This record gives sequence, C-alpha cells and structure tokens, in this order.
Amino acid sequence: MAGTRMKLELSRVVQGRSRLGVLRGLGRTGQHSLEIPGCLLYTHFGTVPHLTQDTLHTLTNLPSVTQVTLSSIAEHQEVLEEFKDGFRKFAGLHDTLLYCSLHDPAAPCPTGYTTNKTVSVWGSGGRIELTVAKFMALQKTVQPDWYQSMADGETWQNNTSRKRVRKSVDRTLAHLDECLLVHQNSQELEGVELFGVVEGGDILEERVRSAKETAKRPVSGFCLDGFQTGSMDQALRTQLIAAVTKELPEDKPRLLQGVGRPDEVLACVEAGVDLFESFFPFQVTERGCALCFSFDISPDPERAGSAPPAVLELNDDERDTAGETQQNGDLNLDDQTQMTPFEINLKDKRYQGDFRPLVEGCGCYCCANHQRAYLHHLLVTNELLAGVLLMIHNTAHYHGFFGALREAMANDKVDLLKRRVLRERGGQIERKE
Amino acid sequence: MAGTRMKLELSRVVQGRSRLGVLRGLGRTGQHSLEIPGCLLYTHFGTVPHLTQDTLHTLTNLPSVTQVTLSSIAEHQEVLEEFKDGFRKFAGLHDTLLYCSLHDPAAPCPTGYTTNKTVSVWGSGGRIELTVAKFMALQKTVQPDWYQSMADGETWQNNTSRKRVRKSVDRTLAHLDECLLVHQNSQELEGVELFGVVEGGDILEERVRSAKETAKRPVSGFCLDGFQTGSMDQALRTQLIAAVTKELPEDKPRLLQGVGRPDEVLACVEAGVDLFESFFPFQVTERGCALCFSFDISPDPERAGSAPPAVLELNDDERDTAGETQQNGDLNLDDQTQMTPFEINLKDKRYQGDFRPLVEGCGCYCCANHQRAYLHHLLVTNELLAGVLLMIHNTAHYHGFFGALREAMANDKVDLLKRRVLRERGGQIERKE
Repeated sequence: MAGTRMKLELSRVVQGRSRLGVLRGLGRTGQHSLEIPGCLLYTHFGTVPHLTQDTLHTLTNLPSVTQVTLSSIAEHQEVLEEFKDGFRKFAGLHDTLLYCSLHDPAAPCPTGYTTNKTVSVWGSGGRIELTVAKFMALQKTVQPDWYQSMADGETWQNNTSRKRVRKSVDRTLAHLDECLLVHQNSQELEGVELFGVVEGGDILEERVRSAKETAKRPVSGFCLDGFQTGSMDQALRTQLIAAVTKELPEDKPRLLQGVGRPDEVLACVEAGVDLFESFFPFQVTERGCALCFSFDISPDPERAGSAPPAVLELNDDERDTAGETQQNGDLNLDDQTQMTPFEINLKDKRYQGDFRPLVEGCGCYCCANHQRAYLHHLLVTNELLAGVLLMIHNTAHYHGFFGALREAMANDKVDLLKRRVLRERGGQIERKE
Repeated sequence: MAGTRMKLELSRVVQGRSRLGVLRGLGRTGQHSLEIPGCLLYTHFGTVPHLTQDTLHTLTNLPSVTQVTLSSIAEHQEVLEEFKDGFRKFAGLHDTLLYCSLHDPAAPCPTGYTTNKTVSVWGSGGRIELTVAKFMALQKTVQPDWYQSMADGETWQNNTSRKRVRKSVDRTLAHLDECLLVHQNSQELEGVELFGVVEGGDILEERVRSAKETAKRPVSGFCLDGFQTGSMDQALRTQLIAAVTKELPEDKPRLLQGVGRPDEVLACVEAGVDLFESFFPFQVTERGCALCFSFDISPDPERAGSAPPAVLELNDDERDTAGETQQNGDLNLDDQTQMTPFEINLKDKRYQGDFRPLVEGCGCYCCANHQRAYLHHLLVTNELLAGVLLMIHNTAHYHGFFGALREAMANDKVDLLKRRVLRERGGQIERKE
C-alpha cells in the first residue's frame, strides 16, 4: 500500500457516523499527528495568503498538514526540478506536512477540458494539461507527504447527465490505477500517502460504486469530490456522503473537498467526514469580512454571556442577502463569494465608530491589538494590512471552531455547539417561512 | 515656542554642511531620541504598508518617529473625535512618536486647488478642503508629537511663474502665523512641536526669503517642500537647499519632503538636510523590486568581497531604462514609479531559478528565509505575501543605509560610502556620455 506508517485511532464514533480521533504516524519520519474532525491549512502557492511564517506562528493549534495545489505549482515544474529539494523547502516551510491537491478550492476552474487521458489545471499563465505521467512527475518534484490521485471532477453541476457521471467515475478509477502503478514503482514516493478520489455527481448508485471500487485499491485515504458549496443542497449532500462513507473502511480518513461553511461542516461531520480544507476563512477575508460566529460551549454562564454577539448584529438588509443560498433552488459556485451569516462586513459604515475588537475575548493578534473601527478604516483606505489582520483573525477563529467541535464531541455537547453555531440561521429560516 | 524639550545635539559637521547628531528630548515625556541624518518611518494610515506591528518589530534600528499624513486621516475626523485618545492609539501604535504631514509623499496630489485661505488633501473619498481652523482642529484630534504647518506647496513644477512662487511663499507664511496663533493658545497642543514649511519653487531669492522669514517664527524645525524627485535636477536642488539651510538656525532640524533615492539623499545631506521621509522602499516594493545597492564600508576585505552584487547584475536593458531621470531634461513626478539603479526587478525571468537571498548577508526575515526564485514565483502568481516580504527587506535595507551613512560620517568614510552606493551610477553616466 502507498504509505505505511499513517494510522487512524478513533476514540469515539458519535451517533454511528461522526468520528473523533487522531491520525498518527504522519510524515516520512512518522512524528506528526492530526486530530479529526479537523482541517488542513489552506495555502496559495505554499503561503497562507498575506501571512509570513512568523505571523502565522503567532497562532496556536494550527494543523500539522499544509495543503498546496498543483494548479499553482504546475507551471513552475522546471524550476522545482532544478531546485531538487522539493516544494516545502522552496516555499520556506518548516515542520509541516504537505498535502498536494489538484485544484485550488477557492478558485473554481472552468469545465469541459478533461479527456480520457488528461485533466487540466489553471495557473497564472493559463491552462496546463496533465497526463498521468506528467502528474506523477510533478508529485516526485513537489515531494509531498500526501497527495490526491488524478481525477475527473467535472460532474458537480446538477444538470450533469448520468452517462457523463458514469464516465467520470470510470475515468477516475482508471487514473487511480495508473497513478498507483507509477507510485508503487517509484523510490521517490516511498512512504508518501496516496488518497483515492470518490466521484459520482449527485447520483447515489454512482457514488456508491465509486466508493466501493476506490476502497478496493491500496489507498491511504479518500477525497470526496464534487460536493462543493453551491453544487447541491445540504440535504442531498448529507445523504450522498452518508452513503459513500458507509462503503469506506473505518480505518482510513475521509477528506471532503470544497466545503467550508461552519453549518455545512457540522452536517458533513455527522455524515462521516473527517477532514476539510480551510479555504473558507480566506474567502471571508477577501470580501473584507470577519468571522464572528459563536462556538463557545463553556459551562461558565459569565463566559457564555460574553460570547461574540456578532451574528445578532446583522441588520435586516444583511439578513436578507446573507445565507440565501439554501433558501432557493438557484445554486451555483458564485455563492462562494457571497457573505454568509457567520461573518460581519467590516466595510459597513456602522463599524466606523465601533471601538470593540472583532470578537470579544479572542486571543489572536488582530483582536488583541485593534478595534473594528480601525479595520473599517483600513478597508476604506484600501490599506493591504486589512487583509493581513483579517486573515490572522479568520484563520484563528476557524481553527478554534474545529477545536470546539472536537471538544464538543468528546464531552457530548455537539447539540449545544450546533445551537450556538446555527442559532441565528435558525431564527432566520423561521423569519423567512 | 511650540514644543520645548526637543534639543538637537550636533556631534559633527562635515565639510561645513553635513550634520551628524542626535535629536533628544522627543515626545511628550521627552524620553525618545532620533539620530541625524536619518529618516522617519513611512506609513499609510498609520501602518507601514503590508506589515503588522509584530512583523515590523522583527526589524531592528527603526526610527523613533512615525510619519502619518492628513490626506489619509482627514476624512476620518469625526470618528477620531469620538474615539478621543488620538490617532496613535486608534492605529494600535505603541512607543513611537507621531509626525503628521499634510500630504503622502508616495501619492502626489493634483494641483490647482489651493486658495488664499485653504489647501486641499485627497483621501479615498476624494478632495477635502482644509482651512486653518479645520487643519488645527484635525491636529488636536490626531494628537501628534510633531506636525507640519499648513502650506501652499503647489510650486514644484518647473514652469511655475515667479508671481505664483511669490504668492506661495506669502501664503505659507500667513498660514504659519495663523497656525502658531491657534497652537500657542491651545492646551491640547502643549508640548507638541510645529515645523514651519520653506517654499519658493526653483527661484533662489524666494527660497532664501522663505527660509529667513520662517526662521524668524518660533518653530521647532523646518520642512523643505517643493524639492521632490522629478521636480528639478539634482544640481539645482542641491544649490537651492544649500542656500536655504544657510539661512536656518543650526539648532533646529531640517526635514526634506519627497526625496528618497539613495544618491539624492547623499547629495542633500551634503547640502545640510537632516531628515528624510522613507516612502522610497514602499515605492520599490510596489513595483515588485528589491533594494540591493551596497553600502558596506566595512574594512574587512572578505566582508567587502561579499557585498551585494546587485547593481552589477543589471542587464543592458535595465541600465538603459533605469536612472534616466537625470540624463535628460524631461522631468516629472511619474519618474517616481520607474525603477532606479538601486534595485532589482524580481519579476524578471532571470530570477526564476536564482536560489540566493535578495541580498547575501542581509539579516532581515525575508533574506533569512527565502530565495529570489521564491519571491519571483510569488510575484508571478500574484500572491500578496510578495509585498509583505519585499517590504520587510526594503525597509530593513533602507534604514540600514541611513545607519551606514551616520557611521561613515563619524569615521570619515563618506567618500568610500558614496563610491559604494554610486559605483554603478558612475559607470552608467560614463557610458552614456
């Protein structure tokens, strides 16, 4: 099997599906671990957007696995080959594992370019077509610890035909077999973990077939593709994911691609997902917003009382525009750029005289040093430090949420956590009905 | 006199005009000092562009005075008034002095908007017209330690008529008298230092008159305005500045506005300038470039041998385009956005496989952790971290240059330093002739 040391230790399975545990023995020396449910550290070309490694490490409890994407790396293959020491060293990263995915979850790519033998990625210089040979040569150059197998993921749109979905599953399995063949015969990739990709669009039988077939192969884990936010509604997604995870072995991790909203994360964990990508705080940052939903499940009533009032402060306009995604049938990937009910828009005039931190009690550098009013004025004056400060806070807040989720699962408080996270959404749905 | 504690101690005056010394007793408590020749810390809306305070303070030897500009603050007056505690606290700054200037030296503003009673500044929301009353009310809100008096600085263009220049000098003196009147009757501004502004365009008699008249007023220091890069050639600038500084009292600092190129700094220090603004490293950063001129005057031949080879590496194309400013008569402020011979363009393809740091031996965070090739790829992929990393290096390099200049003045090595800094320019000028 590709990769040998990684071991998933489940400490708890809640309600038959939500899994709490630790992935141990990670990395070529086996010294790293990763808690589940959890998320990978999102990067663009190896950097958490806007942040130096120094700034990043003012944050505690960051995951031990960093996600990089072939879409931003592929065009630099020649230089990386010349550099020889792999992408981690090239990007100045230390003491982290690399997971190499095909696409950037924050930058949806055009469809219609896959063939039987190739997939395409889009870098800054345009489209790059990858055969399995080129894909695997790239992996040898990048030298990740984990990587996603090549896959035909073009079936997420909800009007995709059954025939196209079947072809996508077949192609993805064929790609996986070819990748495995190269992988197993490559010394450079010894000890590296290969994740198989489950496709199948919104067709239950194809999802199950893809899961079953992928599970038969000697992969180290599973990527669930084609479920990204905007591609289908949450009820259908949960149903399909539950059907998929039922077919997957207990002892291997399941990584869901393209889903990051807190409410969706909670639902998908209940459907059996272990790992997520953390592109969501980056998207929130890019629209000038700050995450401030509450995930405080502390029993101390005083602390609970000072939980961030953020969502309650949405005004009627914001309530009406935010979170519409799930109220109507008009779903598409553009929704990813829309504000969600889990954030506040710091560009809004009401924050120009708000001298509180983004989130009361948050220990991040931004909240410890600056007020909402200052962030508002940085955004209004187009000062790029706004992005730096928001990214610090949003990253801290998002990873804090995953920590709270694990704590809730360990202490039978998942329902309380869900009420905290979803409370305003609940109110909102009521209002709308 | 406005401000009372500040004291300039000159330890050396080289060749009759270059002044080496320390400004002591700065700030409301008098505990800060600033070495001259030196520069202020450039900021945009109170932040060194791209950098958090944490990141900034990985740099050593930063100046104790931070420059903020009314152009970015004026539109936020109401909020600052409500905030009450001044701009320093609003911007999360600690342990630094604030110097408040009228305009942003990195963002030249349109001309034609001054009147007898007002000047205009441009914020993100457009033009804001300032009377002396509004200007002084802003100062009380900002609560700086130093500030520049209101001035009519619209005479830097070299086709300005003698009549217009004379009017500018008269208006600026009238503004100063009005500012002083408010200042001296204001409790809020007690202990704050007011700098008078010397105008006069490119007309020697007007420069001298402006200097003499300003020097009669109870100001704490002098701003030399209208000399910005692109407004006149270096020989004329040096001649005018020398004539101006001759009229100014020895015991007060002279701050030159809008000049930042290392060669121009060296010439202006020789003409009697003490202080500069540090917008130059920001401009270099914004065009994707890295400062790497040598200012190594170490006697150790081995260290000298490893001096940054940067400028030598300019190719013929770059040599031909960079630094043209002073070769022809076609001068304008747009030149400020052009590359100079003191930097390398990291976007250039030749750096894509260059695995050296920006400057060999540089101790900044960027050079300690990353190579030119990585910076090149960050720029090519439009990753904003490129700006963060370049700003760290360029700020460190520029302030390092000022440190070397003071060291050279203290040790009779100014000629050696000039040869180091200008060596390639010298070669270039020869080539051109």
